[in-house]
Amino acid sequence: MKTALAIFGFVATAAAQPLTVMPVPAKVIQGDGVLAIDQAFRAALAGPPDARLRAAMDRFREQLTKITGIPPLPAPDKGQAQPPLILAVQCLGAGKPVQALDEDESYKLVVTTKAARLTAPNPLGILHGLETFLQLVQPGPNGYFVPVVTIDDKPRFAWRGLMIDVCRHWMPLPVILRQLDAMAAVKMNVFHWHLTDDQGFRIESKLFPKLQKLGTSDNNYFTQAQVKEVVAYARNRGIRVIPEFDMPGHMAAWFAGMPVLATDDGPYKLENTWGVFPGTLDVTRESTYEFLDKFIGEMTALFPDEYFHIGGDEVAQRTEWNKSVHVADFKKEHNLKNNDELQAYFNKRLQEIVKKHGKHMEGWDEIMNPDLPKDILIQSWRGQKSLADGARLGFQGILSAPYYLDAMHQSWEMYLTDPLGRDAASLSDEEKTRIHGGEVCMWDEFVTSETLDGRVWPRTAAVAERFWSPERVVDVDDMYRRLDLLSRRLEWLGLQHRNAYQTMLERLAGPDPVGPLRTLADVLRPVNLGGRDRRRHYTQQTPLNRLVDTVLPESPVVRDFTKAVTDLNKPVVRQYLATWQANQLLVRPTLDRNALLQEIVPVSADVAKLAVIGQQALDYIENNQAPPDAWLAEQRAYINGITSNRKPPTEVVILIADPIGKLVDRAAAPPQAPN
Amino acid sequence: MKTALAIFGFVATAAAQPLTVMPVPAKVIQGDGVLAIDQAFRAALAGPPDARLRAAMDRFREQLTKITGIPPLPAPDKGQAQPPLILAVQCLGAGKPVQALDEDESYKLVVTTKAARLTAPNPLGILHGLETFLQLVQPGPNGYFVPVVTIDDKPRFAWRGLMIDVCRHWMPLPVILRQLDAMAAVKMNVFHWHLTDDQGFRIESKLFPKLQKLGTSDNNYFTQAQVKEVVAYARNRGIRVIPEFDMPGHMAAWFAGMPVLATDDGPYKLENTWGVFPGTLDVTRESTYEFLDKFIGEMTALFPDEYFHIGGDEVAQRTEWNKSVHVADFKKEHNLKNNDELQAYFNKRLQEIVKKHGKHMEGWDEIMNPDLPKDILIQSWRGQKSLADGARLGFQGILSAPYYLDAMHQSWEMYLTDPLGRDAASLSDEEKTRIHGGEVCMWDEFVTSETLDGRVWPRTAAVAERFWSPERVVDVDDMYRRLDLLSRRLEWLGLQHRNAYQTMLERLAGPDPVGPLRTLADVLRPVNLGGRDRRRHYTQQTPLNRLVDTVLPESPVVRDFTKAVTDLNKPVVRQYLATWQANQLLVRPTLDRNALLQEIVPVSADVAKLAVIGQQALDYIENNQAPPDAWLAEQRAYINGITSNRKPPTEVVILIADPIGKLVDRAAAPPQAPN
Repeated sequence: MKTALAIFGFVATAAAQPLTVMPVPAKVIQGDGVLAIDQAFRAALAGPPDARLRAAMDRFREQLTKITGIPPLPAPDKGQAQPPLILAVQCLGAGKPVQALDEDESYKLVVTTKAARLTAPNPLGILHGLETFLQLVQPGPNGYFVPVVTIDDKPRFAWRGLMIDVCRHWMPLPVILRQLDAMAAVKMNVFHWHLTDDQGFRIESKLFPKLQKLGTSDNNYFTQAQVKEVVAYARNRGIRVIPEFDMPGHMAAWFAGMPVLATDDGPYKLENTWGVFPGTLDVTRESTYEFLDKFIGEMTALFPDEYFHIGGDEVAQRTEWNKSVHVADFKKEHNLKNNDELQAYFNKRLQEIVKKHGKHMEGWDEIMNPDLPKDILIQSWRGQKSLADGARLGFQGILSAPYYLDAMHQSWEMYLTDPLGRDAASLSDEEKTRIHGGEVCMWDEFVTSETLDGRVWPRTAAVAERFWSPERVVDVDDMYRRLDLLSRRLEWLGLQHRNAYQTMLERLAGPDPVGPLRTLADVLRPVNLGGRDRRRHYTQQTPLNRLVDTVLPESPVVRDFTKAVTDLNKPVVRQYLATWQANQLLVRPTLDRNALLQEIVPVSADVAKLAVIGQQALDYIENNQAPPDAWLAEQRAYINGITSNRKPPTEVVILIADPIGKLVDRAAAPPQAPN
Repeated sequence: MKTALAIFGFVATAAAQPLTVMPVPAKVIQGDGVLAIDQAFRAALAGPPDARLRAAMDRFREQLTKITGIPPLPAPDKGQAQPPLILAVQCLGAGKPVQALDEDESYKLVVTTKAARLTAPNPLGILHGLETFLQLVQPGPNGYFVPVVTIDDKPRFAWRGLMIDVCRHWMPLPVILRQLDAMAAVKMNVFHWHLTDDQGFRIESKLFPKLQKLGTSDNNYFTQAQVKEVVAYARNRGIRVIPEFDMPGHMAAWFAGMPVLATDDGPYKLENTWGVFPGTLDVTRESTYEFLDKFIGEMTALFPDEYFHIGGDEVAQRTEWNKSVHVADFKKEHNLKNNDELQAYFNKRLQEIVKKHGKHMEGWDEIMNPDLPKDILIQSWRGQKSLADGARLGFQGILSAPYYLDAMHQSWEMYLTDPLGRDAASLSDEEKTRIHGGEVCMWDEFVTSETLDGRVWPRTAAVAERFWSPERVVDVDDMYRRLDLLSRRLEWLGLQHRNAYQTMLERLAGPDPVGPLRTLADVLRPVNLGGRDRRRHYTQQTPLNRLVDTVLPESPVVRDFTKAVTDLNKPVVRQYLATWQANQLLVRPTLDRNALLQEIVPVSADVAKLAVIGQQALDYIENNQAPPDAWLAEQRAYINGITSNRKPPTEVVILIADPIGKLVDRAAAPPQAPN
């Protein structure tokens, strides 16, 4: 016992530590003191045997070692006493064989200065509680510790998803698996796998192998064995997997192998550019439904989840339905006034097939139709109004529109967008219960396996908090504080969001030192999908190796600078501005050396000029002097030229134009005005 | 053809580019112009079918995509023409079924502005030539290119090895595999796998499973299936795998499972501390040789290489042989005067067993004995004298002593140490042919799977160049220029030497920004193995998560600073010094916050004080003023106190003490003296 006492030295701290958990738990009571985490740490699982939880405990121990650098002690020899239990984990009930939307995900974690106890009614709560515990571990002046705390936690929304498009650019299995690791770290629970689109049919069908063989340009698709691996990997982490087979539009890749499914005679080819294409499923033929019955039967056997996503979006105005005589005849025969009604007809029949195979049908906004049964679920890419309309009609819904990662919103923007906000705020309580949550969406027209992590993380974690935490949790500064910590931890899980940025910058820098290029890149972000330059004629094979592909959607450097501007922290503002001004000369040889960087020369000049404007504004402020109107007009015009240009040919946005504009405004304000 | 011409736009450069290849090839003729590497790049293999080369071409294409960010174009449809061949690869002969020491590794690479051609008499040369080609690819003002060049290359030494100890700390399979990737990138060809030692028996024996089951504290060992995977992976990359089974000393892990093999009655336990232990194989009993015959038979079946390493080092003076009556009797009976002669007796019998199983015996210096047959190979951990003695006796030899990575030599020190230097320089030409090369050695008492990459790379690449390139290649500045490029590229192969440094620093920084801690860490290196503080009572389970474990053996920052001091580049020197002085205050909260960093507070103070001394020295130099003798004496005493302390309790060495000492010397020199 003496040894044990020596090992378990307890320390007390004066004040409660700021919470390091993301998403913020529903209920937190912080106490005094800490629980020491040292090499004698032992966690054990009680309750009915559960393979999922045993695996989770192994991962937990491995992560704890990574977080602390402390290897576990060898198990004591037989007959020797175990060290005392520090974290007791008890699951009070079994989970469902297939993870369901209505499962209880709550948990309770009680940490005292002597030990911790994690309990939950269901394994899902234990999985979440273990992540919380890991996030609480931090170094302290007396060693690693977890603060004394009582956490009573449960999610606000039951559906907290991430969609990844693997069609436009191929995402190999390890890339998918590490997204699941990251999702579990922030308690997300739905992986929506966008498996088919015009540019790729990315899953093996054994019944219709032409689909994947002729439906991919690079022969890259997930085998059924890999699909099973992903589903099992996700289940182990408390994540449901919902496949999407987009129809009746976005199906060019199907038609490449099975043109018989299409409305027209073809020929059809796999698409390798972006957009909406006319090829559409022939929904008038019975053979189509016979095929769908077999195909959906094969796929539902692979995906145990109770929901099955059939897409349904963007059946273009220019669909080949418009010019097809037999479709026109069919519409007349069935009294269908337009393509929307034809699609509704299709969806009703499709829903019957999906239901026959034991699933609820899920689809994008366009499938919404009052005649459809109310067990379907609408994923809204159109926004809260569409979502609210669905809920009023009695449909289940989830929100995606504001969480489109390719829109390049900053984390705080997505963070402050509530699934029950705007139009949805006026719903009745009962209607609100139909809105299960939301999904972050990553469309991959301009994303490769090399850049995916940096586009998805850490921004997605901010949305994960929106989906999990109470509505009142809206402190953006505190969110970013925790997001920065989480971002580091994601790298320990194998995510590449920061490392890939550095290595891609180094690739661009060639033999030069990377520092100046990084200084420049740190003030840029990519344009959003709509801002991409169509004159470049992007295809699936276009290299995505330019600066626009390298820079991250959000910059902690610019965030820091913006804060310094807001606080009018003059030395910090001045140091940033001086660095950016000086950088133009330093980075120039690197830009000149690489063909891919020559387009960036004017961007570098703009950054330097903005830095000069900022310095001048700061001079006016420091001298308590009003800038001349002509100067103001000139600078504002210049800054406005930059901020209003949504389609710069370089496809990068200069993030410091905004805060420097604020600095100019500040200089223009009456000198003595409070702010 | 018009398209093809447009795609293959050629560019000409005025002057030859500095070479980016490491190791430097035997013969290089640089020409004018470049070969463009763009998306139409196509490489194809001619010659007899060879699975190893087909796999190499696949890896080559994958690497080229990583280096350029350019994805391959889909294969053309049937009937359509292939794009023109840019890199023609032709292997003129087959390799041996088991890679041998005497195989021809040469290759010839000819690059013109239109195409490139790689030829070799043996697949090994093709593997090396492909690495050279990849290293030549770089971004240019007109796109990626390879400079026009003719390279006629072959290694200076046939044995270019890396030894990794997986006993003291466990190194999982992926860690081993990525070392092989890095070795192949710098044309190393021997992986020496130190599989058994006092602290771990790290390979599965199916005949004697107690060896691994009781010979590991953590149940971590390589299964035979994993061994086969490593051997195949290595062969695919032109690397031989030589296992080491260290005997008759360093065998505590064997005795934990099979005490019957030991000299004494025991009890024996697996060791978990470092040093030399008395337990020794009982070489007097016939049963020992019967065991060895079976065991070596099992192991030689796993390792096809013609060499088999039996260790043989450090049979301590305090071996239990000394106190054993039956050993004393045996020595008397066999007329063996001392333990060395007893070991020689053992080695002779062991050599017969090894030979019976078709292998040459390899061992450390201690096995050298004039009576042993001359087909054995001596690996010298004692240095060039021992190596030369062996060569004079007719033994084959390789050098390791100066390439011990735990000695924390800087790359340039190892780089300038020639296997045929010092005592070996006086050997006759014939004797010199017996020296096949050398091996870098990584002993892992203080290295974990987390820190291995940073201890091994990029330093090992400098030694790889010593082993491969002509003796005349000794330009240290040029070596470092290429080493920096290589270091980046190793990360693309999956090596973690830089990324792990950053993540470990962030772990230490906890919730603080990592910048100030990194500024401090960048001027430190770990003490060498001998400098570790014994009072800490290190064991195999001691966490290696302190700053000494985090910092890298060599600092590009300090290299840059040292160069600035040498060149007396005053602005650069002053900026570094100011940063380091100011950093003390910035880093202090981070040091105070983490128990693991509190020992670093005085180190941070020393760094700041050194920076102040440097600034004062620079002031004297700039003012052309001789410093007072008292000042000089005081600063020199202080600096000397730091540089002469080989065992600081913090176990970190302050690398800037040396160059700042030089700055003080410079200030002390007569102001007008040339230098």
